[in-house]
Amino acid sequence: MSNSLLEITLSRIRLVDEQWLERARARQLALTKPPGSLGRLEEIANRLAAIQETLTPSVERPRILVFAADHGVCAERVNPYPQAVTAQMVANFLRGGAAINALANAAGAELRVVDAGAAHDIEGSADLISRPIGRGTKNFCEQPAMSREEAQASLELGIEMVEAAAADGCALLAIGEMGIGNTTAASAITAAITGAEPAGVVGRGTGADDAGLARKRSAVERALALHAHANEPFDVLACLGGFEIGAMCGVALGAAAIRRAVVVDGFIASAAAALAVRFNRAVTDYLFAAHLSPEPGHAALMREIGHRPLLDLEMRLGEGTGAALAIPVIRAAVAAFTGMATFESAGVSERAEGTS
Amino acid sequence: MSNSLLEITLSRIRLVDEQWLERARARQLALTKPPGSLGRLEEIANRLAAIQETLTPSVERPRILVFAADHGVCAERVNPYPQAVTAQMVANFLRGGAAINALANAAGAELRVVDAGAAHDIEGSADLISRPIGRGTKNFCEQPAMSREEAQASLELGIEMVEAAAADGCALLAIGEMGIGNTTAASAITAAITGAEPAGVVGRGTGADDAGLARKRSAVERALALHAHANEPFDVLACLGGFEIGAMCGVALGAAAIRRAVVVDGFIASAAAALAVRFNRAVTDYLFAAHLSPEPGHAALMREIGHRPLLDLEMRLGEGTGAALAIPVIRAAVAAFTGMATFESAGVSERAEGTS
Repeated sequence: MSNSLLEITLSRIRLVDEQWLERARARQLALTKPPGSLGRLEEIANRLAAIQETLTPSVERPRILVFAADHGVCAERVNPYPQAVTAQMVANFLRGGAAINALANAAGAELRVVDAGAAHDIEGSADLISRPIGRGTKNFCEQPAMSREEAQASLELGIEMVEAAAADGCALLAIGEMGIGNTTAASAITAAITGAEPAGVVGRGTGADDAGLARKRSAVERALALHAHANEPFDVLACLGGFEIGAMCGVALGAAAIRRAVVVDGFIASAAAALAVRFNRAVTDYLFAAHLSPEPGHAALMREIGHRPLLDLEMRLGEGTGAALAIPVIRAAVAAFTGMATFESAGVSERAEGTS
Repeated sequence: MSNSLLEITLSRIRLVDEQWLERARARQLALTKPPGSLGRLEEIANRLAAIQETLTPSVERPRILVFAADHGVCAERVNPYPQAVTAQMVANFLRGGAAINALANAAGAELRVVDAGAAHDIEGSADLISRPIGRGTKNFCEQPAMSREEAQASLELGIEMVEAAAADGCALLAIGEMGIGNTTAASAITAAITGAEPAGVVGRGTGADDAGLARKRSAVERALALHAHANEPFDVLACLGGFEIGAMCGVALGAAAIRRAVVVDGFIASAAAALAVRFNRAVTDYLFAAHLSPEPGHAALMREIGHRPLLDLEMRLGEGTGAALAIPVIRAAVAAFTGMATFESAGVSERAEGTS
């Protein structure tokens, strides 16, 4: 893959410059509020300033990229919904009837829906970005989910979506997904990259009952045994991933390469982000973890990428809905950082000496 | 106070109708998402539906009411900032330079700033709602903070602000405050109404050091000993409160009386809300707790009003800033509830029988 889009992208990723973090912290202390009193909003603004290398970071035109794909592991009956729901829900996104439509709109964010490889035909719409890598992955209990060519194509799909967003002037990106069966894939990835026991990272997803949960655990255990050689992130993606997971991973890589922040939705998006961090540890500087998923593997992924989620609203829907909720928090953090007066400009007294 | 505005308001407060909660839950199950998958957003929308008695609740024209006042207990040197900062920060609000200006604007919320009794003159501005009950309260370590007439006037100030907001078509209200020394008053109220030990509910506020913290604890202990007879909420407010705390309590009472939801900011606003709940337990149905304050007394107040905060962003600024962050969450909850398609209308399959 030398000189490929993926290779070029990986070569461009750098840590953020610590000096910009220091500059941002110094500005926070000058603003008319007790030091540190905006809590995590200050951390958010400081890191965005460092990512964008400016004390006036932008959150203009936030764009939520939702990638849809299907999963061969559904043959193991890991999900209570039929696989056709992936295409049906994408059609619902395109008609504006899904949760992510309502939440993206409420957040003032653009929504882009990408078919990265659904198994069923999606009702036609000019708004669909149709870039299928295949008609769903293979069953990873029996063989690798994807070929190496497919894995690379999924990553490069994400990178290309970042380039298009950058060309449109989107200062902030978010990643979400739709794919029946993809909590099973995300659980397998989580176990593979964190070394956690499968039982500790497999949850009920959209609502598996006890028997469904047992089938998910069994599928993950068999997949890990079959693909025990997969340690490098590219191999983990190819053996255990999905097209939408590869694309979201590609967004994280592509955004880090051009110094854009990425808001990471829940469990599945976090598995993609954790793979990106395995490609290059510096990617973590560009990520914001939107919310804590109730899926048991999510906390392990948060430790892996080194972030605490901003929100905990017990949401477990996917689609980018958690990311949509985090966008106004990030916008508020930037609004305070760039819009507040300083003690000096406002004529407000700082703390009195010797009184405390 | 018979036939007073306060008495009339108290007589009108009712619990929300459980049938509307049931109707809202039934609608949630029909929307195109796994049951319960929007987590706390579903609880928010269901309760707003019950408050407003409609399946299309509104969050139009959210208004943040920020009440400012000064506190006689500052004579005990409980705060590292000089008392003049209250008036200076109100002037900063009116010029648009404070955190709450940036965050209210980012949240698409109106801001109303009310002088409920600052000790210093506030630089003139047509935008200030000047309704001072007095020039700061008395030192409650030595005497009641307010007379009974002042306490009633502070409550009725809040009720009047609700009536004005309702006349302007504001569907959602939020309460915040500015008052040097008011974490000490809120701590005293918290200890008085929850029975907690003063040491467990007194924190560092805007940044007291160890000596300042010891002075705060001592002030609260002496106040509780002096006003040990104060058990009814009206007496607790008069003895230990502040004009802004009374006004915020009045907003909660007034809003419950006319079936409006109130977003409660952090520690001090929660002390006011807890007093309102002591006036009438039904008030709790109308409250949304915006965020968890790091102040040690806040969790006790949350138990008292029976809510879990929506956010935990480690903010400890006051001004209504936490409430401003919660408004987009509430807006998103309503957007999903009122804007999503149903499984039937969208042609999306529900969970397959026998597969999970």
